Order: sequence, then structure tokens, then C-alpha cells
Amino acid sequence: MNKLAVGIDIGGTNTSIGLINREGKIFYEHAIPTQIREHFEDFVADLYREIKLGIEQLNEPCQIAGIGIGAPNANYYSGCIEDAANLRWKGIIDLVSLFKKHIDAPVFLTNDANAAAIGEMIYGGAKQMNDFIVVTLGTGLGSGIVVNGKLLYGHDGFAGEMGHIIVEPNGRLCGCGRKGCLETYVSATGLVRTAAEQLANFNMPSSLNATPFNQLTSKQVADAANSGDEVAKAAVLKTAKILGEALADVSVITSPKAIFLFGGLTKAGALLIDEVKHHMEKNMLYLFKSKIQLLISELGDNAAIMGASALVWAELENQQ
Amino acid sequence: MNKLAVGIDIGGTNTSIGLINREGKIFYEHAIPTQIREHFEDFVADLYREIKLGIEQLNEPCQIAGIGIGAPNANYYSGCIEDAANLRWKGIIDLVSLFKKHIDAPVFLTNDANAAAIGEMIYGGAKQMNDFIVVTLGTGLGSGIVVNGKLLYGHDGFAGEMGHIIVEPNGRLCGCGRKGCLETYVSATGLVRTAAEQLANFNMPSSLNATPFNQLTSKQVADAANSGDEVAKAAVLKTAKILGEALADVSVITSPKAIFLFGGLTKAGALLIDEVKHHMEKNMLYLFKSKIQLLISELGDNAAIMGASALVWAELENQQ
Repeated sequence: MNKLAVGIDIGGTNTSIGLINREGKIFYEHAIPTQIREHFEDFVADLYREIKLGIEQLNEPCQIAGIGIGAPNANYYSGCIEDAANLRWKGIIDLVSLFKKHIDAPVFLTNDANAAAIGEMIYGGAKQMNDFIVVTLGTGLGSGIVVNGKLLYGHDGFAGEMGHIIVEPNGRLCGCGRKGCLETYVSATGLVRTAAEQLANFNMPSSLNATPFNQLTSKQVADAANSGDEVAKAAVLKTAKILGEALADVSVITSPKAIFLFGGLTKAGALLIDEVKHHMEKNMLYLFKSKIQLLISELGDNAAIMGASALVWAELENQQ
Repeated sequence: MNKLAVGIDIGGTNTSIGLINREGKIFYEHAIPTQIREHFEDFVADLYREIKLGIEQLNEPCQIAGIGIGAPNANYYSGCIEDAANLRWKGIIDLVSLFKKHIDAPVFLTNDANAAAIGEMIYGGAKQMNDFIVVTLGTGLGSGIVVNGKLLYGHDGFAGEMGHIIVEPNGRLCGCGRKGCLETYVSATGLVRTAAEQLANFNMPSSLNATPFNQLTSKQVADAANSGDEVAKAAVLKTAKILGEALADVSVITSPKAIFLFGGLTKAGALLIDEVKHHMEKNMLYLFKSKIQLLISELGDNAAIMGASALVWAELENQQ
């Protein structure tokens, strides 16, 4: 009988559900819109119905080892989503308890970046590693830090908020209300902001000149950079430099064996990655020089549900 | 029968040896010069002799639970001191193995800042805490980070080098060869450097004007600041601001319950500490605001040997 973990990734727009075995094989996958239900309880009932549908479609009996959920502002310790800015349900939502009303199986919750790190450890490039960091480069910048084979949650469950290291005092305004946070420079949004800044700096022909700021995408900037657009290239290189320097700083704190980059921004390719590596090494403390690998995540397009499901295996194996 | 741990603190000038019980009571303490022996083996033999002398002087039988050693550039994993700049013995010294030739007891090695953190956990203000940071403010800045009740060593044993976060790109030259490291600003040496900088900035009467740079001490600067010397005060406040900002950054990585400050610089008192707290809170991510305590270490003058001996209790209790 197949032993499967349910992986659920709650995003601002869609929520994906998957059934995945310990080896990372996906047996079922489906997505539903996240925010059509007024009451969170109804949304949870929808999710449970989707899981049951998935199990029915397998055409063979299976055992559900547990449910892993990745969600914004998720608190691993409390099992709650706390004040998520991009969800319609406000305040503190006790997701794990609500789920347990439907199913008699272990339910685990963590945030998206932590789920990505656990996914890398269970299914991806960090299988043999006890100490590593996964940096997720999406709309914002998240990080999941694994120390001694376990996710670093810290005192209140919110450790690993690397996107909110301040890299530029009085720098760019951040969604968190402060200024100069890493993610205002290094993220899809950050790259677009830097491209706009470089357009102003260079004031020369560029394929980006014709697109209004609010329509510019990080993919467009990365593609232009890789096609030789000087302004776009300057934006990518500046982004890489800031990331490389930040990674060198974080390395002296947690001493990882490797740092994995994950998410859309990594598709900017060697232009970005080589420059990140260059600045990371240039700024690295001698104790760690040439010792910390910079790698691309080995999780593919289904990384979000894989990461969420990986949480189940990691938790059950830790309990043994 | 008393069960005691041996705590040894190897410093550049002196090495202290203590016999301490689980409650932190010191039964014996003695110091010898560190660097009079040409061969490290002879130095270890001296240390062993001192331990035996200490035990003899107790006038009652005792059981030695183990030996804990704090040393510069110590690697917990390998049990070696690696390329310590301020010791006469060069290269990689296998201290733990050398010690085990003399005594049939567990021997543990870690660096000074880690020992301070373990000491705080076993004997001091962090007894009930699983996640906290100890920042040692001496000649340099060290840090010991406890996560989930255990020291964060990272992949190669050198995690927690918070003194080498770069806080000022192209800033002050650091002993590590790079520029702008936190400890070039926040440490006894850093405060003296900032005082010299402020003398230049202010160019006004100050009690510090009459002392050559190479004779200026951090205590002198702190005392002058507390006596109302405006230039010295500006130096202390700048030091505090940089430390507060750095602590806010590190907090988003490891999410501690508390941060303990330790070492001579803390004697600058409320002028320094209140300003550190102010800037730490001002720069804190909303998730952690008003949640992380800034405390002064509760270990007293014998902190170094206490921290080293605490390593023994922590290791033995972890093994249970």
C-alpha cells in the first residue's frame, strides 16, 4: 500500500493540493482558488473534500502519513496563520485545529520558505546536508534555515526572515514599514525597482524604456539583460551584488554547507548566479572562503506542494 | 561526593583553571601563564598538573565529570585549535586528543563566546531559555547562539561569528582582512577607534584629547562619557547605535527570546545599554518588536572558566 503525504500550498490566489510519496513522486495534484469562501472553516472543508477526491482517483488503496501545509505568515509552533496580509481572513486562524476536525492524521504547518527548505532536504539537493539555507526569490525574499538537520524556528517560530535584514539604512521603503530591507532589492519586485532606478541613472536607449513601471516584470528585465541590454544588465548585476554580500553576512551567523537559491529570479541564469557567487566569495570571512556551495534548488515546478508534503516526512522521522 | 567539572579558559596571556559544580559554585581556581612552553604538549601537561593540584587541595574526594575548554579559534567538532593568531603554537593543534592522554574523562572544546553562551544557559540568566544569543564585547566581538537548547555550530563548527557581519561597506579595516566588520565598531577596540574619530569630528575640548591613540582605553572613553564629556558620549552613542541595528538584523535570522551582552564594554552602563535597546527596537521587524529582551550577562568575574565548565554539563545532559 502506498504511503503518501498530503502537501498543501496556500497562496494568495490559488491553493495547490498534492499526494506525494517519500521518494517525491506526485500521485495526484490539483489547485483551487484560495479566496472564494467567506469563512475559513468552509475553505478548510473544501480542502478536505479535494484530498478525499484525490485519494479516490488513485485507483489503489493508500495510507495518508500526514498533512503538511505551507502558508504565508504561518507559525509552526502554534499551528496558526497570523495576520497574513494577502489573505481575506484576518487575525489569527487556527488552521491545524480546524483541519484535525476533518481528519485523524498528523497536521503540520509552516511558512512557504521553510517548506521549500524541508523539500530540498527530503527530495532535493540537500538530502545529505545538516546545515544549509534555502533562499526563495519570489515577489519577496524568504529563507528557510536548517541547522543540525532541523528547521531553525527560533523562540516564536518566525526565524529565517532574511528578507528583512536591513542592507541599506534609509533605503527603499519595504512592505514591513521599515526602510532598506534586503527584499526591497533582491526579489522579483526588487529587480524591477532597480531596473527603474537604472533607467534613471543611465538615461540611454533600453528595451525597458517603453514599459510603464507598473507593468514591468522581473522576467522582462532578466530577459533584456541576457539579450545584452546594458541598463537591464546593470540592474541584474546590482541585484546579484547585494544578494552575494548578504549571503556572506548570513554565512558567518549559521555556517551553512550550502546555500540554495529558489524561485523565478534564478531563471535570470548565469548572469545573475555567477555574480552572486563572485560577491559572496569576495565578502566572505576567511574561515568560510571557498567552503560554502551556492546551488540552485533541485525542486521543480511543483516545489510548493512538494515542500509542504516534505514537512510530514521530516516531522515523522524526527519523532522516531 | 562532589561531582565537579573542570573549566579551562585559554587566553593569549593567562590560562585559568577552575573546579566547579553543577550549581556554579567554584571550589578551586588558579591561573598560569599561557605561552611559556615551547611545545604545546608541555603546556597540556602543566594544565593536567594544575588540575591534580586543585583536586588535592579540596580536602574531600570528588568525581570529575569532564573537562571543558574555551580557547580562541577552537573547533568544537574537531577538538582542535586552528590557526590561533594570538597563540605561539601555530597550525592545527589537536588539544582534545592531547588532553585525553592524561585523563580518562570526557573533554570538550569550544571558543570563548560559545563557552559564554553555554555558561549563561547552565548557570546564568538563560537557564529556562532554548533560543538566545550571547554577545561578548571584549577586544573583539564574539557571539554564541543557542537554538533549540543547543549551541549553533553550523557545518564546520564556526557559526556565530557575528563580529564579522559587514555593517559599513568599505568601512574600517578589520583584523580579518576585510573592511567594515561589526567588531571594528562595536568592541573595546572599536569604541577607542570611534572616540578618535569623534575627536577629529568635534575638534573641541575633551578629556580624551591629551591621551595618544595607542594609550586610549575603552574604559577611559566610557568613564569620560559618563562624566559628561560630549565627545566621549558621542562615541559611546554611535557604538550603541551600530550594535542595536546589528542585533535587530540578527534577530530576524534566529528569532531569540533574549540577547545577553557580556564583557567589559557593558560597564559603560545605562548610557550604552539604553541606546542599544532604543536602536534595536527602532530597527526591529514588526514580528519581533518588544518581544526580544536585551539583558546583561549574569555571569560574574569568573565567567570564562564557568562557561568552559558549563560545556561539560551541557554535553553530558544532551547525551542523556
